[in-house]
Amino acid sequence: MTEAEFLTALRLLPLHPGAKGLADDSARLSDLVITTDTIVEGVHFLSGDPAGDVAWKLVAVNLSDLAAKGATPEGVLLSYPLSDEAWDQAFLAGLREVLAAFDVPLLGGDTVSLPAGAPRVLGLTAIGRGEADPARSGAKAGDTLWVTGTIGDAGAGLRIARGQSGPTELLAAYRRPFPRLSDGKALAPHVHAMMDVSDGLLLDAGRMAAASGLAVTIDLATTPLSDAYRTFVGNDREARIAAASAGDDYQLLFAAPAGWEPPVAATAVGHFAEGTGLSLTDSGMPVAVPPRLGFEH
Amino acid sequence: MTEAEFLTALRLLPLHPGAKGLADDSARLSDLVITTDTIVEGVHFLSGDPAGDVAWKLVAVNLSDLAAKGATPEGVLLSYPLSDEAWDQAFLAGLREVLAAFDVPLLGGDTVSLPAGAPRVLGLTAIGRGEADPARSGAKAGDTLWVTGTIGDAGAGLRIARGQSGPTELLAAYRRPFPRLSDGKALAPHVHAMMDVSDGLLLDAGRMAAASGLAVTIDLATTPLSDAYRTFVGNDREARIAAASAGDDYQLLFAAPAGWEPPVAATAVGHFAEGTGLSLTDSGMPVAVPPRLGFEH
Repeated sequence: MTEAEFLTALRLLPLHPGAKGLADDSARLSDLVITTDTIVEGVHFLSGDPAGDVAWKLVAVNLSDLAAKGATPEGVLLSYPLSDEAWDQAFLAGLREVLAAFDVPLLGGDTVSLPAGAPRVLGLTAIGRGEADPARSGAKAGDTLWVTGTIGDAGAGLRIARGQSGPTELLAAYRRPFPRLSDGKALAPHVHAMMDVSDGLLLDAGRMAAASGLAVTIDLATTPLSDAYRTFVGNDREARIAAASAGDDYQLLFAAPAGWEPPVAATAVGHFAEGTGLSLTDSGMPVAVPPRLGFEH
Repeated sequence: MTEAEFLTALRLLPLHPGAKGLADDSARLSDLVITTDTIVEGVHFLSGDPAGDVAWKLVAVNLSDLAAKGATPEGVLLSYPLSDEAWDQAFLAGLREVLAAFDVPLLGGDTVSLPAGAPRVLGLTAIGRGEADPARSGAKAGDTLWVTGTIGDAGAGLRIARGQSGPTELLAAYRRPFPRLSDGKALAPHVHAMMDVSDGLLLDAGRMAAASGLAVTIDLATTPLSDAYRTFVGNDREARIAAASAGDDYQLLFAAPAGWEPPVAATAVGHFAEGTGLSLTDSGMPVAVPPRLGFEH
């Protein structure tokens, strides 16, 4: 089954009110925000990625879902496949770094053995605290679509992780993403809708529009690109489409009333309107939507 | 690394107060009890086990950790590897059954793709609500050790799942374990210590004793065996040792003051004393402790 088919089937099961119809990346239980994300060797990370970076990424991708709710991390539960001594030690070192970096303690977990030769599967559940609760589905017609930071760096970093030579800051964006926790806290009380960009700006913006029952238009000329990305990949339309359809950005994507200025570093990249679907422009001129909008996994 | 080594290393990381030093199967966050358990094809279940039974087991083993705290399930988050249509559909049917059986709604989750040929790895986080909080570490010298229900049925059922012919009720005990939620609620406010028996009565009793800084003695003659177990495996000392060192019982093991009578169906199987380690008797006569006390995975 595809993820969409499976989710449709899950929605026929008894759902907790805090599950929000399984239409969001996190659940709510009174003042707690709860999210779980699993990463798989060969799918979400490369076999050659350093174990410490895998630990960082596992925690960071979950904290990114808390950031999208403006929540403060309260603790994480780890599901860990025991491995060889060197990998485990390096993982623990990376875990220590990422927990310290985002000031989040370990709350619990589970270890398992995997059959010999099986790809590593690592799970994490993150719990945060926060009252604001911007849904993915709250965008209004006329809202501006914003994104924090820059887009495409991790996608370019993946090419470097796979062997191409390139700037280390792009590789770091892929291996050690930085969840936008403080941005999320500053934004959450004010925005109509918010989610993190994990699978590609175009794919995730389309998801926000669909959840909100709206159409969204993104102008490629506004896609925020880092200097490193411009140097390594370029700044033309093709480079912008590549950036906007790459995964692993972990920036925050949010909808807010036209004219409102966000209190954090962010770029207006599009707007919502009545209707359905995703449209692209480049400096205002219509552009064909590429066949692949992001990374589905 | 071994699980024990990994846990020792994790304890050097910043721990949440509700993590209880990672010495328990669940964590506490105000009035919530949180647990996460992952099951792996070829380790915790057989490749030939029906997908619906795998769904049941995944939920049941987590709810069993809530039962050990006397908590009422509030919701579960699922981490699911998308698979072939038939397996996914059968899993969903089993998931529907187990959620209905224990009146617990779905709260959220995550789906992933696994590389071709990889063993299935399924994760669940269960959240429950309850004020009582019997720790694994609370047993006192002089306490009686009790266990609910019967022991060894699932271990015998595993032999049937592997191809031996035998009673279907033992197979059901292996494939569809029944978390003792109502027993747990009745016991939690009264007992000194409680945990579920997931890895073997002897192994888990030894863990409770170690966590409590005590010695424990178990009398094999008191091990509660089902009629089906007695018929299929036997009732001699060897059969009792096999039952007491088999995994997957998901009964509740608890310590309570001598003379106190539990309000649920349970059997007194041993007692705690000053000292350390596990001792065995058979109708009061000392017996050698077997080399393998349970199932470590």
